[in-house]
Amino acid sequence: MQQRNPGGDRQIFIQEVCPRDGLQNEAVFVSTEDKIALINQLSACGFAKIEVTSFTSPKAIPALKDAEEVMKNIRRNPAVEYSVLVPNLRGAERAMACLIDEANLVMSASASHNFTNLRMSREASVEQLSLVINALKGSSAAINLSLSAAFGCPFEGDVAEATVLRLIEHFALREVRGITLCDTTGMAYPSQVASLCRQVKQQFPQLEITLHFHDTRGMALANTLAALGEGINRFDAATGGLGGCPYAPGASGNVCTEDMVHMLTLMGYQTGVNLESLLEISRDLPRLIGHNVPGSLARAGMRSDLHPMPASLEQQFKGCVPAGVQL
Amino acid sequence: MQQRNPGGDRQIFIQEVCPRDGLQNEAVFVSTEDKIALINQLSACGFAKIEVTSFTSPKAIPALKDAEEVMKNIRRNPAVEYSVLVPNLRGAERAMACLIDEANLVMSASASHNFTNLRMSREASVEQLSLVINALKGSSAAINLSLSAAFGCPFEGDVAEATVLRLIEHFALREVRGITLCDTTGMAYPSQVASLCRQVKQQFPQLEITLHFHDTRGMALANTLAALGEGINRFDAATGGLGGCPYAPGASGNVCTEDMVHMLTLMGYQTGVNLESLLEISRDLPRLIGHNVPGSLARAGMRSDLHPMPASLEQQFKGCVPAGVQL
Repeated sequence: MQQRNPGGDRQIFIQEVCPRDGLQNEAVFVSTEDKIALINQLSACGFAKIEVTSFTSPKAIPALKDAEEVMKNIRRNPAVEYSVLVPNLRGAERAMACLIDEANLVMSASASHNFTNLRMSREASVEQLSLVINALKGSSAAINLSLSAAFGCPFEGDVAEATVLRLIEHFALREVRGITLCDTTGMAYPSQVASLCRQVKQQFPQLEITLHFHDTRGMALANTLAALGEGINRFDAATGGLGGCPYAPGASGNVCTEDMVHMLTLMGYQTGVNLESLLEISRDLPRLIGHNVPGSLARAGMRSDLHPMPASLEQQFKGCVPAGVQL
Repeated sequence: MQQRNPGGDRQIFIQEVCPRDGLQNEAVFVSTEDKIALINQLSACGFAKIEVTSFTSPKAIPALKDAEEVMKNIRRNPAVEYSVLVPNLRGAERAMACLIDEANLVMSASASHNFTNLRMSREASVEQLSLVINALKGSSAAINLSLSAAFGCPFEGDVAEATVLRLIEHFALREVRGITLCDTTGMAYPSQVASLCRQVKQQFPQLEITLHFHDTRGMALANTLAALGEGINRFDAATGGLGGCPYAPGASGNVCTEDMVHMLTLMGYQTGVNLESLLEISRDLPRLIGHNVPGSLARAGMRSDLHPMPASLEQQFKGCVPAGVQL
């Protein structure tokens, strides 16, 4: 970081995951109509990509049981890629029927986390996702793999870098477009992020790499900074900082989109995201989900949102003629 | 950041400000007995310095009206420096009578913020603090200057780097030991932090430089990372993330000590702080102040605090023989 605005107009792609990763963790069912309205609003904010929903079994994630209806009824902005989570072949068929732009496959870098989430071994996940990839290749959908627990597992602890790299290799051989390194339960720390990003970029220069942080332990923006330093240009984030993990109680959610965009913009990076519009959406989220959001900016306002001086002091201040040393 | 543990055993000095900057913003009066017990507990955690209280007028900050009683009755650990905030000559006299280790003077880098906080111009503050410095030089107390709003003013917005550097020069000429660059209302961003730190270190190599961040807009740990990258080794932080600013409503508090120590430790830096003891103290704070604390770690636990797998899955997982591709 050599100058005050190291961004130097570098383009950063922000991928909004609130409608999927955020809402799937909420106790209330947000109505299909409200979901569609939310996504339509987000579509006008300047995101590179929006993760719309998940084509999992409605029994597994009832919050997103309206996946088809949402995906088919949103107003698509041609400048935005619409991605959906696809866990298996059945999900891929449902997703392709909705003409998605991207299928986001998912498995975990840790054996116990993969088993807990997907009820199978990692080896079985790789095989099953290979079939999903084959099926998707008949469509125009791009394919991304989200690798959960890539920076640590809430049950096992550390996950070896070598394991993460070997898993990525399996999917690179199957020619997915991108890989997302997911810090599912907020275990990543900046030097670890830098190290893994460097190796993944070096070994797989053909892949589009996304970083997906959770702010569980307050390090999400520090981790973002570390990833930026390694040339990473794509980040997942959720408006309001919604999200979480059912197996890590007390954990807070995804990195908050407006907090991330605010920091990146101050640093001179170009995200294309309209922060004012995004803040309006974030401040309306409590109406949909019934509680306050964890992100900072909706509460504190932007750095440029100044406050008035206490009225009783303002007149005195204006009349105060500085005396004494020369400043 | 070239390796996974860039810390390489580098020593970082953590200066705990919860008893002063944290408690002064609380609506409840924490009893003198509880304050002393809190500081005694913090004294056993391994901090380089603890800011104990403030020798301001009890009318201005009633929460700290017991400054003498607290300062005289804590059990001092010889490994810890005990600092107090000193706003003026009267405060300096009261502080010296308590045999403090360090006097922390304060003024603001912004004219309107200085007037709001101290009811005088910055020029008058420099003159008045020069008298305070002269008075303190007759004692054994070290002298630090905390420069508020060094990264932006909640009333005026940007504060020029040149202004900050010029103010520091006035105090460097008066031979203070250290300067603290305070991000009083959370307006600092990483590239700005890096730039100012670099210039201050370059122009004033003789000064001990401390960074004091607030997490108002979620950037406190990212800013810490930026300062570390410029060779900064001293940070203020408040257990639980207590603190705030009366003129910036909705703002959250100081960077949370346990969140900062947790990140630094993971990165291989040596802080000397016992994180387990600190978390115990943080989890006891709601009893003293009557509300939850904003920091992350007290809620989420450390990265190394693993969770059990859901019991219903654990047996199945143990019996699951991975089949398919070789990982």
